Amino acid sequence: MNTEHTATTGQQPGPDELGVGMRFSIHPHCDDFARVILDSLAEAEAGGLTEHLEITTDEVSTYVGARQAPAEQHLARYLAGVIAAASRHSGGGHIASHVLLSRGCPGEVSCDLSVTGLGQAAPVQVPATGIDAVAHWSLYPLLDGGSEDGDHMPIIENAIACAQQRGTATRSVHYATTLSGDVAEVLTTAVDAWTEVGTAVPHVVSHLTISVGSPTAGRV
Amino acid sequence: MNTEHTATTGQQPGPDELGVGMRFSIHPHCDDFARVILDSLAEAEAGGLTEHLEITTDEVSTYVGARQAPAEQHLARYLAGVIAAASRHSGGGHIASHVLLSRGCPGEVSCDLSVTGLGQAAPVQVPATGIDAVAHWSLYPLLDGGSEDGDHMPIIENAIACAQQRGTATRSVHYATTLSGDVAEVLTTAVDAWTEVGTAVPHVVSHLTISVGSPTAGRV
Repeated sequence: MNTEHTATTGQQPGPDELGVGMRFSIHPHCDDFARVILDSLAEAEAGGLTEHLEITTDEVSTYVGARQAPAEQHLARYLAGVIAAASRHSGGGHIASHVLLSRGCPGEVSCDLSVTGLGQAAPVQVPATGIDAVAHWSLYPLLDGGSEDGDHMPIIENAIACAQQRGTATRSVHYATTLSGDVAEVLTTAVDAWTEVGTAVPHVVSHLTISVGSPTAGRV
Repeated sequence: MNTEHTATTGQQPGPDELGVGMRFSIHPHCDDFARVILDSLAEAEAGGLTEHLEITTDEVSTYVGARQAPAEQHLARYLAGVIAAASRHSGGGHIASHVLLSRGCPGEVSCDLSVTGLGQAAPVQVPATGIDAVAHWSLYPLLDGGSEDGDHMPIIENAIACAQQRGTATRSVHYATTLSGDVAEVLTTAVDAWTEVGTAVPHVVSHLTISVGSPTAGRV
């Protein structure tokens, strides 16, 4: 890992150096789920949402690496596009998606990144999809014991407070915070928080379980 | 949070004090997904797998708190039972499940646990289900900057090495490790690693995206 882009150089590391990317899976709850998934991925690609992204699918989930700025916005727009397309292609049926956002760990399993004090990234802009979602969101600042002082929980609590101010964080549950709103707003809330924590903590991961069109919506 | 159960007392904190639990969601990819889910949950309950567990479902996922030892085994057996039942009730169709395992953060959003040096938990025993799964597994030791020395990556790498020795960890992908095998073996690998890390790091979270019966299995 090239660590020349430390604070001492005054140069900000690019998305490629930071390993900005995600894994996601999408789950249409219908017999023709394969068609819905393939049509949704094709629609996102036809709409130009895969530009500047490296995408690899295996049998469990899809890796999406963002190599060019604004990396976080490329990821958020692509994912919002795929989820919204899946909702439409399933006729408004129940769609779930699971998302892992990661930054600061470019390697497969090793993480020798010594970058700290990343630049402030601009909030991402994602067009509204017109589709409502509810999500469970968790954020993990992966501090090291030998690092500067810092407690992981105030970082998480601050991110939750920001999400509450946006109006997206509607309630806390065990181990997660519930986000509600347009798919675009749910994703931008999580992506902005993940990026913001990345200005202080190099390795930051966030998970989202997103539900669209659930038949149990409003009943709990 | 009652923190009297520190190492200085010589008394081990119980599962209730440690907030040992999980959230999970299950996604049958079929039109009658609601029936499959409800039948699977009912079967797990009828089989006694919900004993000693606190279970609350909302529209995104289900919280399962384990209040009695062996807490980790109660969680793993319940989840293996639900996933296997869902596979059977869908006629061997495609089932995905997402799991968040958490220990050391009993509260909704706050985490003031000061316990360190948790006792060694015995490996969990889960009967084989006869159903193969492939999963992406991630493990997050939530160290604090002010804590004793320690780097989060060696902890993760050691857990992956253990999973490789078991034969369950088959390859690394970006941000995750692929686990393959019987549903029971995949879950015990992740649960044992999560518990083991908990002997050194109080707050440990792990995520799994589990796939059963994927039509793309073996094609990637």
